Amino acid sequence: MPTPIILDCDPGHDDVFAIWLAAGHPEIDLRAITTVGGNGQLGQTTYNARVVTELAGITGVPISPGADGPLLRGLTPAGGVHGENALGGPELPVPSLAADPRTAIELIRDTLDRAEQEVTIVATGPLTNIAMFVRAHPDRLSRVREVVWMGGSTERGNITPYAEFNSWSDPEAAAIVLASGLPFTMIGLNVTHQALATPDVLARIGAIGNRTAAFGVELLSFLNAAYDKDQGMPAGPLHDPVAVALVAVPGVVTTVRTRLDIELHGTETAGATSVDLLGNLKRPPNADVGTGIDVPEFWRMIEAAIRTLA
Amino acid sequence: MPTPIILDCDPGHDDVFAIWLAAGHPEIDLRAITTVGGNGQLGQTTYNARVVTELAGITGVPISPGADGPLLRGLTPAGGVHGENALGGPELPVPSLAADPRTAIELIRDTLDRAEQEVTIVATGPLTNIAMFVRAHPDRLSRVREVVWMGGSTERGNITPYAEFNSWSDPEAAAIVLASGLPFTMIGLNVTHQALATPDVLARIGAIGNRTAAFGVELLSFLNAAYDKDQGMPAGPLHDPVAVALVAVPGVVTTVRTRLDIELHGTETAGATSVDLLGNLKRPPNADVGTGIDVPEFWRMIEAAIRTLA
Amino acid sequence: MPTPIILDCDPGHDDVFAIWLAAGHPEIDLRAITTVGGNGQLGQTTYNARVVTELAGITGVPISPGADGPLLRGLTPAGGVHGENALGGPELPVPSLAADPRTAIELIRDTLDRAEQEVTIVATGPLTNIAMFVRAHPDRLSRVREVVWMGGSTERGNITPYAEFNSWSDPEAAAIVLASGLPFTMIGLNVTHQALATPDVLARIGAIGNRTAAFGVELLSFLNAAYDKDQGMPAGPLHDPVAVALVAVPGVVTTVRTRLDIELHGTETAGATSVDLLGNLKRPPNADVGTGIDVPEFWRMIEAAIRTLA
Amino acid sequence: MPTPIILDCDPGHDDVFAIWLAAGHPEIDLRAITTVGGNGQLGQTTYNARVVTELAGITGVPISPGADGPLLRGLTPAGGVHGENALGGPELPVPSLAADPRTAIELIRDTLDRAEQEVTIVATGPLTNIAMFVRAHPDRLSRVREVVWMGGSTERGNITPYAEFNSWSDPEAAAIVLASGLPFTMIGLNVTHQALATPDVLARIGAIGNRTAAFGVELLSFLNAAYDKDQGMPAGPLHDPVAVALVAVPGVVTTVRTRLDIELHGTETAGATSVDLLGNLKRPPNADVGTGIDVPEFWRMIEAAIRTLA
Repeated sequence: MPTPIILDCDPGHDDVFAIWLAAGHPEIDLRAITTVGGNGQLGQTTYNARVVTELAGITGVPISPGADGPLLRGLTPAGGVHGENALGGPELPVPSLAADPRTAIELIRDTLDRAEQEVTIVATGPLTNIAMFVRAHPDRLSRVREVVWMGGSTERGNITPYAEFNSWSDPEAAAIVLASGLPFTMIGLNVTHQALATPDVLARIGAIGNRTAAFGVELLSFLNAAYDKDQGMPAGPLHDPVAVALVAVPGVVTTVRTRLDIELHGTETAGATSVDLLGNLKRPPNADVGTGIDVPEFWRMIEAAIRTLA
Repeated sequence: MPTPIILDCDPGHDDVFAIWLAAGHPEIDLRAITTVGGNGQLGQTTYNARVVTELAGITGVPISPGADGPLLRGLTPAGGVHGENALGGPELPVPSLAADPRTAIELIRDTLDRAEQEVTIVATGPLTNIAMFVRAHPDRLSRVREVVWMGGSTERGNITPYAEFNSWSDPEAAAIVLASGLPFTMIGLNVTHQALATPDVLARIGAIGNRTAAFGVELLSFLNAAYDKDQGMPAGPLHDPVAVALVAVPGVVTTVRTRLDIELHGTETAGATSVDLLGNLKRPPNADVGTGIDVPEFWRMIEAAIRTLA
Repeated sequence: MPTPIILDCDPGHDDVFAIWLAAGHPEIDLRAITTVGGNGQLGQTTYNARVVTELAGITGVPISPGADGPLLRGLTPAGGVHGENALGGPELPVPSLAADPRTAIELIRDTLDRAEQEVTIVATGPLTNIAMFVRAHPDRLSRVREVVWMGGSTERGNITPYAEFNSWSDPEAAAIVLASGLPFTMIGLNVTHQALATPDVLARIGAIGNRTAAFGVELLSFLNAAYDKDQGMPAGPLHDPVAVALVAVPGVVTTVRTRLDIELHGTETAGATSVDLLGNLKRPPNADVGTGIDVPEFWRMIEAAIRTLA
Repeated sequence: MPTPIILDCDPGHDDVFAIWLAAGHPEIDLRAITTVGGNGQLGQTTYNARVVTELAGITGVPISPGADGPLLRGLTPAGGVHGENALGGPELPVPSLAADPRTAIELIRDTLDRAEQEVTIVATGPLTNIAMFVRAHPDRLSRVREVVWMGGSTERGNITPYAEFNSWSDPEAAAIVLASGLPFTMIGLNVTHQALATPDVLARIGAIGNRTAAFGVELLSFLNAAYDKDQGMPAGPLHDPVAVALVAVPGVVTTVRTRLDIELHGTETAGATSVDLLGNLKRPPNADVGTGIDVPEFWRMIEAAIRTLA
């Protein structure tokens, strides 16, 4: 039986593939999409979610906008890599699919309330919405199976030397979710920087031949050019779908049970995800943290999912 | 025309008088009560709100529980001054008045949506609920006239040397509300430590002769004993109703337009409300901060309000 | 037998009176003066110390320059109140008295080594030099009787809402000295803001009739004008000599044994001196903190000291 | 002409090889050794420096003890890896070589004053002594050619997830030295974790056949066992001599000109060395940071140096 999930995202190129993988993989039952300000302003990320959901022929999945920025810190969209509309590359069709009138918090609550079993939350942006949900509905936490987050890093960051963009954007939200007691898995840059959109990947996706694949290739081409210019990486990483992949096929990503703390007070390191792999801190483990990925299998999953879409 | 308000509180002895002043003063139209974890656990503060609302014969005011603790930091109820049930002193009758089924955020939203004019939020506990509302419903901020908060201090604190209890409990929430752009007034200890429940005050309230007054005298007697023991103040301060008094009769509390910043990162001073009365920081003003109070008039208002209740 | 002291200062108008009180009071044996960057750049504060020592006819007291700025943070001289040369008002005569060739650390060490008894360090600027001494010569700490510091506040600050200038300038140094285990007394703004140079004070000093008094009146007149403009105080406070007064006549300043912590990490409150007068923190006491002053006696001491000088 | 250096260290196994490389390499002229609390208490690290200097037949190099612990934070010796006496493994002969009577600061000053050219400071422990020197003798900075420090990391740390031991021990000292304007090179774990004492290395050193080599092999055997147990590294890294190697033969370590900031305020990341390799922060470069090492050449240098010793 497929795993029911809510996907909280801020599309963003890689979020798009997370949506598509979630919609197209047989082991995932995508129940709802919530959006957050992150890679772009909330209005843009919500618009983008509507565009790529409709374009891929995904139906019956409500999309609700959530927080327009981090809890405490101002929103600084990741324009450098994703472009001005957070989804640089292809021309975006005007979507006829409307956003759900509920707020993200309400949609998460309702989705949990209507589910016959626990629901997994996969988050691929700043954790603002999930933190808000946690503080607004503590009585609903028992209906959440786990939170799987693309964010952070066990190594270096990408927006500052030690912080990854999602974590840096809203470290307080990450700390709230981590402290909530919900089972928590972090898939950081140390893993996702292995999921590179190489020319071979583009060729294989291009060969699928449907509308979604063509759009996807345009996205990846833009992303690769941006990463090449911004970080000297000619094949850019596709961070967000790795979190979905782990939920679909647990073995595709290796994780370790360990201690994770979020830096909230550093002047140079705010948002750093301090992962105590050596056990120096002698604190109880509180998270599963990604350490490896089966890259060929990951791309096979992406390819197979897109093949099922429009 | 009386000012419509939502009272967000964590009763607590002084919150009780805030409720009673809001319900009994002709210039205040109390539309809703929301509760928060603070002086006591959320279950207790909600229970206490129900008790004292019913006891005073206040009807038609929905009471909704909100956040069970601060956004980021653990809840540390102020047991020392308020007792184990946050309302030490009188025996609490079991209330028949039930809590509203909506969450505090939902009640605030609905109250704003149904109001024919802007509504003032008076908050007398940690600002957790108000911060949650601000982040959950940015589109509703224009319906809020202002936020008047009992919290902070321009001088020393009471829970740590430089932090007042409400501010110390959830400084991140205070920072979120302050940054929201909502007009913001802070009534801190520097003002409320003048509103002392002296023997004369107790005598006058006792002389009112109704049920509410009798209950109130029991509350104040407990509070005074607790302050005497805890802080060497034989007549304890009644912080929270001062914020209501300012809304009812603006002249009763003097304020100054100035700069207010909340300390989020200090190890000794977290929650300190840094009020730049000298203008040293050269930052734009962002708050009205209480500096003085007409103490006799304040107590006349309290007395008059209780006289209107059951 | 008079108490031998080393005076570490950053003249500054009030430091001058600290020097004069130390030199002119029969219960103080001024053994050395060390200077630090604070109210002015090190070169200026050293120059000023030489000027006012020579002008007052004080002989046999070596003057050594120490740190040119705080340990970690940049030096921001207090130009607003003290003027560009840190000693605005009178024309400064060119001193023939030269600085001692030793560094401040060396002079402190040698003064301690040559003393027949423990020596008190009175510090009236940022604690940079004393912190350096503490870390450079831990084996000499037993020769120090105590450190008496003018700095900090139990109430509001003067450079930021919660920090006093000396503490704000070098909080890390204050923390080092406080952690050294040396007996430590803090005389903060809460006390020194009572030592106001009123017109009566100026008249009495002016009536002394010697060169030092005349120079002193010029200093105070400038200081009062500056405080009036900067902080709305027409009679400015003479902070620094209060620390000397306490050493000369312990009863002139009231202190309480309590807990003092220095805020090092706050973004709004760095340098705040957190004094736990209520004992909330349950930490062991580590300092004596000034709480009151016999103002008339203080000014009588100043007057009497100046009368003994040139 | 060999480069004159002062070696500031806290022996520690790897510091020993730094001393030996400095003494035995023809391109280094070791003028002075100063010690600091770090891997062990100051008394122990000074003792160890005397032991291994004498044992290796190094003469004419004064050894002075400096700071007994970090500026602000308590000393936490690295007992886990280095053992109780910071030099676990071989039996330590009682040295007849005495420490110099001067303090470390005085020895650094005198060494600079007597040098006919600028002197390089190589520091292989917490930067406490160098920070003290910088603040005590700003007029002598022009006599320092550069500071080359083994400390920090561009990647993960070893004492906490993001901090290396030397940097974590005294981040304030590192910040002071970095802000001094002295040319600064950081050789961090990202480089030194390549300098592993493999069995082949031990065999080659063992084959040298002199007293120093035999002692060295005992040290390395202990270190390897400790790293294996503590960090799962069967061949431990020899951090400190890498800094000396860079001074002796610049090409042996690759560096990049970049931006380095020290985290002073993080609760999880204090002491993290934030190295902006991607240039995200747009701040001016202020350091050379090691990025690579010619490992075979490094070990050849160690071997050759030990061959010249007793």
